[in-house]
Amino acid sequence: MSTRLVTVESLHYFTREALRRLGLSETDAAVAADVLVTTDACGVFTHGTKALAGYLRRLKLGGLCPQGCPHIAGEGGAWATVDGDSSLGMITSTFAMNTAIRKAKEQGVAYVGVRNSCHFGAAGYYAWLAAREGLIGLAMANDIPSVAAPGSRGPITGSNPISYAVPAGRHPPLLLDMSTATVAGGKVYTARTRGERIPDTWLLDGEGKPTTDPSGYPDVGALQPAAGHKGYGISLLIETLSGILTGAGFTWQIGSWMWDDGTKPTKHGAAFLAIKTELVMPAAEFGQRMEALVDEIHAAPRAAGVQRLYVPGEMEWERHAHALRHGIALPDDVVATLKKAAELAGLDLNTIYK
Amino acid sequence: MSTRLVTVESLHYFTREALRRLGLSETDAAVAADVLVTTDACGVFTHGTKALAGYLRRLKLGGLCPQGCPHIAGEGGAWATVDGDSSLGMITSTFAMNTAIRKAKEQGVAYVGVRNSCHFGAAGYYAWLAAREGLIGLAMANDIPSVAAPGSRGPITGSNPISYAVPAGRHPPLLLDMSTATVAGGKVYTARTRGERIPDTWLLDGEGKPTTDPSGYPDVGALQPAAGHKGYGISLLIETLSGILTGAGFTWQIGSWMWDDGTKPTKHGAAFLAIKTELVMPAAEFGQRMEALVDEIHAAPRAAGVQRLYVPGEMEWERHAHALRHGIALPDDVVATLKKAAELAGLDLNTIYK
Repeated sequence: MSTRLVTVESLHYFTREALRRLGLSETDAAVAADVLVTTDACGVFTHGTKALAGYLRRLKLGGLCPQGCPHIAGEGGAWATVDGDSSLGMITSTFAMNTAIRKAKEQGVAYVGVRNSCHFGAAGYYAWLAAREGLIGLAMANDIPSVAAPGSRGPITGSNPISYAVPAGRHPPLLLDMSTATVAGGKVYTARTRGERIPDTWLLDGEGKPTTDPSGYPDVGALQPAAGHKGYGISLLIETLSGILTGAGFTWQIGSWMWDDGTKPTKHGAAFLAIKTELVMPAAEFGQRMEALVDEIHAAPRAAGVQRLYVPGEMEWERHAHALRHGIALPDDVVATLKKAAELAGLDLNTIYK
Repeated sequence: MSTRLVTVESLHYFTREALRRLGLSETDAAVAADVLVTTDACGVFTHGTKALAGYLRRLKLGGLCPQGCPHIAGEGGAWATVDGDSSLGMITSTFAMNTAIRKAKEQGVAYVGVRNSCHFGAAGYYAWLAAREGLIGLAMANDIPSVAAPGSRGPITGSNPISYAVPAGRHPPLLLDMSTATVAGGKVYTARTRGERIPDTWLLDGEGKPTTDPSGYPDVGALQPAAGHKGYGISLLIETLSGILTGAGFTWQIGSWMWDDGTKPTKHGAAFLAIKTELVMPAAEFGQRMEALVDEIHAAPRAAGVQRLYVPGEMEWERHAHALRHGIALPDDVVATLKKAAELAGLDLNTIYK
């Protein structure tokens, strides 16, 4: 399967070129490619270039605007609202996090909300943008309802992801990127495709009862919220900061970037926070304290058979380092949608294999 | 059991008097009493006046300073660090959240970290302080390690609570207050006392394996993090914002307010965020959008046998309203520790019953 091994550079080039052919500027195409390819390099294939074909389709149909220009629609000392102008979610979100970083460098902390966006890919990328510059970053977004509330029959909130990144001295940044559902819908769908049963904590059936049968998903039922009322509660905070306070769509007002009418905007919202720790505590002190926390966890006693204790993001950073050296082994489902992307853009996918 | 029914006012008076007798000013005693009694009125008896005797003991022994004066140790545009001066956690935390509210009113958002604090009671109270003034509030704190990381044998992080409150127009504020463990340690301890088995998602035994036997708790084993790596990941963000960035103690540096040497400070940290939504979006618009979200959830289809779908905090607000009218029915374990509190303060507990 060596034909599916690609370098980070060649996948980046392909993604950039595809987006440019659909009308994006070179700068915007590079920004979006960096989000998607970094995500693949971290091994998070559900949220990387697998989605490229879907974005290209929307760019072609007009629901996404190739020449859209995200801009600040309102702002104050430590906050801003960004109107995405129906640009690709990656472009709007990068602009928004950079705005949060800029403001946090002055005020210590900043909140930037986003409206008129679309699917933004992996939340963790934007949190990392802050950590890369020495700040703590948080990123979150709303999405079409797919997750139940305790007691509901059917979905109430989106899988509303949230992520954070914290610089950790000599260690790579702590990086958590999670949905507020027990598991991503993709896992349920994969089990359905394979004809497998699932744990009864993942899905509710059409009556709102836990089920081990994924065959109805996603047409009936709903994902279960992570840790019940806790995941549900956090998803409503994310909905508030991403959807309500930004003027974006919320819950059923949001369109599916994948399945709904490609000529119309999806009205996704998002929210970004940055904290400039260096204003609060000397950088060296903060770094040493984070290192001590990570070192303590690494040295803690482990259960039988457990080789290592990880801090959030550690696995992903190791995959990322490996990908930079040895390339990315693309799974079949990613290759299949990249073929569609190549068709949509008039490119030859075969040029990217090592 | 009518002797255990108390009015909110009489419990407030008793709590205030007890704290005054241990040397607190009238103002400080009233601030702390409000935190604890509001918590009881919401039915969250694990975090209300049940803890009063423990605080009084520390005030007597010197680990908590009756005349301590929380103050701003460092600040900038949208941030501050508060040194609690070993005051009661309720006093320091109220001061810190009020500082965050003041700064958020100018800058849109603010972060206030706390060091030299102690157990702060229910996180949700402080989030509500912000919501009461029309702001979004978040509150969190670290604590002694009691919760495992995925794969660990023994505790790694505290049960690190986090809460938020969001004003919701004509509805009471959304209010979530959760620990990042699957369940509070108190639930496990209660099962132990009663000789009951527990679900295998609550506790790990001394080898780091899930167990249904609570008999070793809390001497051996560790609580399981809520939703596995998700609860673990969030608890590390809370540790970062509450413990690392504030200069407070973190993980094993923290003392147990209940069990450890009462003559020494516990070094707890905490963190508070406030967002002044009115700077970002007109108050009426934000309120209408929040109402629409809550109304939508209330009207959503329910699973068989489910009478209502709740938004976070709704149950607690209904209990609170009931308590204001009809009094608080104190559980036996709360009455037992209030007796100890009365002894420590030289008061007669019997005066508080209706």
